[in-house]
Amino acid sequence: MSVARLPIDIDFSARSQDRAFFCHDGTQIYLIHLIVTVYQENQENLRPIQGRNMTQTIRLPGLADVHTHLRVPGGEHKEDFQTGTAAALAGGVTTVLAMPNTTPPLATETAIAAAYQQAQADTRCQLGLFAGASPAHVDELPRLAPYAVALKIYLNDTFGTLRVEDVPTLRACFQTWPLDKPIAMHAEKQSVAVGIGLAATYNRHVHFCHISRREEIELIADAKMRGLPVTCEVTPHHLFMDVNDAARLGSLADMRPLLGTPDDVAALWEHLNDTVDCVATDHAPHTLAEKRSATPPPGVVGLETSLGLMLTAVSHNRLTLDRLIELMATAPRRLYHLPEQPDTWVDVVLEPTIVRNEALFTKCGWTPFDGVEVAGRVERVTLYGQVVFENGRLLAQPGSGEVIPEM
Amino acid sequence: MSVARLPIDIDFSARSQDRAFFCHDGTQIYLIHLIVTVYQENQENLRPIQGRNMTQTIRLPGLADVHTHLRVPGGEHKEDFQTGTAAALAGGVTTVLAMPNTTPPLATETAIAAAYQQAQADTRCQLGLFAGASPAHVDELPRLAPYAVALKIYLNDTFGTLRVEDVPTLRACFQTWPLDKPIAMHAEKQSVAVGIGLAATYNRHVHFCHISRREEIELIADAKMRGLPVTCEVTPHHLFMDVNDAARLGSLADMRPLLGTPDDVAALWEHLNDTVDCVATDHAPHTLAEKRSATPPPGVVGLETSLGLMLTAVSHNRLTLDRLIELMATAPRRLYHLPEQPDTWVDVVLEPTIVRNEALFTKCGWTPFDGVEVAGRVERVTLYGQVVFENGRLLAQPGSGEVIPEM
Repeated sequence: MSVARLPIDIDFSARSQDRAFFCHDGTQIYLIHLIVTVYQENQENLRPIQGRNMTQTIRLPGLADVHTHLRVPGGEHKEDFQTGTAAALAGGVTTVLAMPNTTPPLATETAIAAAYQQAQADTRCQLGLFAGASPAHVDELPRLAPYAVALKIYLNDTFGTLRVEDVPTLRACFQTWPLDKPIAMHAEKQSVAVGIGLAATYNRHVHFCHISRREEIELIADAKMRGLPVTCEVTPHHLFMDVNDAARLGSLADMRPLLGTPDDVAALWEHLNDTVDCVATDHAPHTLAEKRSATPPPGVVGLETSLGLMLTAVSHNRLTLDRLIELMATAPRRLYHLPEQPDTWVDVVLEPTIVRNEALFTKCGWTPFDGVEVAGRVERVTLYGQVVFENGRLLAQPGSGEVIPEM
Repeated sequence: MSVARLPIDIDFSARSQDRAFFCHDGTQIYLIHLIVTVYQENQENLRPIQGRNMTQTIRLPGLADVHTHLRVPGGEHKEDFQTGTAAALAGGVTTVLAMPNTTPPLATETAIAAAYQQAQADTRCQLGLFAGASPAHVDELPRLAPYAVALKIYLNDTFGTLRVEDVPTLRACFQTWPLDKPIAMHAEKQSVAVGIGLAATYNRHVHFCHISRREEIELIADAKMRGLPVTCEVTPHHLFMDVNDAARLGSLADMRPLLGTPDDVAALWEHLNDTVDCVATDHAPHTLAEKRSATPPPGVVGLETSLGLMLTAVSHNRLTLDRLIELMATAPRRLYHLPEQPDTWVDVVLEPTIVRNEALFTKCGWTPFDGVEVAGRVERVTLYGQVVFENGRLLAQPGSGEVIPEM
């Protein structure tokens, strides 16, 4: 460990301070534990004043959320690239990847080119698009690729019309999508084996989105043990909620995949430190009116609660902070070949914080975690050396971010 | 090629003879083309008499049909081990493997032990049973194994109740079924990728039954090119019938998988000389009354027509006789680790033969190929040195065959 001079702020107005700093220099994390005790003056028998709970501040790399729905085009009444990337920064996320099941879906060159252009005008952070696989437009895939970070294939039912069932489309995806760009799959239960079969047959990386069931994570663990080129993500809502929450919240907790049983949730935690490659939110905004309608669409937001929830898990010793950084920053960047973000970090205050709908930047304005206490909050986000978010204030302008890949 | 003295019968009562003999000594096939012309006597200017079509006789190894439904227990009104193995011998098949989707299914130790015992009493040839995978009895698999040649997993709808959809049952099958016994799968369309994924994850052989669609055979070709441990079979009915026959024959040609399009059929023929590992019949007897009822069950017989149809394909140069022997005898024996059958062969007359329901040994008494001309007929079957079938007469007694594996 090299010696580094760190600027450490000491609050002399406090009576005592007990703080731990995590500093991250891009390759390594340093923990500095600082105890400062201010003794009462004018006492011969000096004794420490009983300290109150002191806040701790940690610095993290900019997080990458590889699974968000920013609803452009067609759903701008509940999210757009401006509000979605505002929510990202508020959550400490400096890179988002946006899913293609929009209206129309990003399955044609026309649609993805327009979305790319809109993102350039609106994004406040690093943003990449998924191209969507569809039987009707599978021949366009090579033309979609320049606009996209990766390809998304929906093997199971989801919000929208992008489901792929037929083997000829699947084969075409694996045979024509550029090898240097990943393929992500919405695959539940037996469909996970479909994805593994295709990964093995065509010897190319398949990333499984939002794995939520014991049987799925165990099958993926087996495939990884065999050396097959598969990876997976889990969402905070599948880690922190289960069927009981679904019963309590009704359509507000309806999502795909559905919330699991307590045993499914336990399996995800068991595998969080080995099989799981990354945490992603599946941030899927819908208005409360839509969710309370007769035909509520599936999905809930996550960008602004993901870090707080995972820090809660760190505080409960369910994973280390190192592992959190791997799951939320290092691994997603590696899996999706995302460009580095120099001079970019997130300062986080580790103090109990109540999630509040009123504080959200997502356009839909609500989260199923409203009222829940989490273990930290984003204090400041620095992106390419500029402070873009600080103490609840959004400072980044629309269009100040970048769309990847560069064209 | 070594020199061998072969006994060749020449019919001097014929005016001319043009015969080709295929002789098979267990490792190699010899073709002897014999042309005998009998000249008219008392003619100074000798010229050949125009010959009539002469019959050819070939000797094949005993065939192995690794996919039959012999309906024991529960369906003995339409087939049983006595009639099913009679049909086998009549078709030149000296080894049959019987599927487990019976009533009750062969998914419990009790059921498979009883079926094994019944087979010992009744079989006229070599016979092996499949154990059936079922979620309810998956823990019994190791106890079923001694009675079974292989395990059958139904991923898709079929006749009976053995469908497996859940990943935990599939995992248990791959993890607990003995490694030296194959796993066969009924998998259609996308389910083929499930089977490939499981074969790759657990690195064990999966045999795909009755592959019938272009997308399926092409995916399997890709997986084989990648070196994955998968094999497959096709049925004569999927090679010789298509959706037009299904329209013509109605419920009589209803089966699972359904008959394909002409393009599907073309794909099977394209892959018959490389991707396809073996031909199996999926012999599935139902009475005509059942097939003509309001709820006709899927399935048709095949044991007594398979060889004739494939010989027709040989006569049309769609495959060689060598390849026929590989597909119908050598490969199925190798894939299922079937014991050798010494002194066993089938003499076949290569002459146009009309398939007739009246001539069938299967208890159900009908075939969708009734009235169809095929290129040959079984003249004589010799099993372990005994003639067991000759010119339409069944000579093997019930119980004279053997059940494998030996217990």
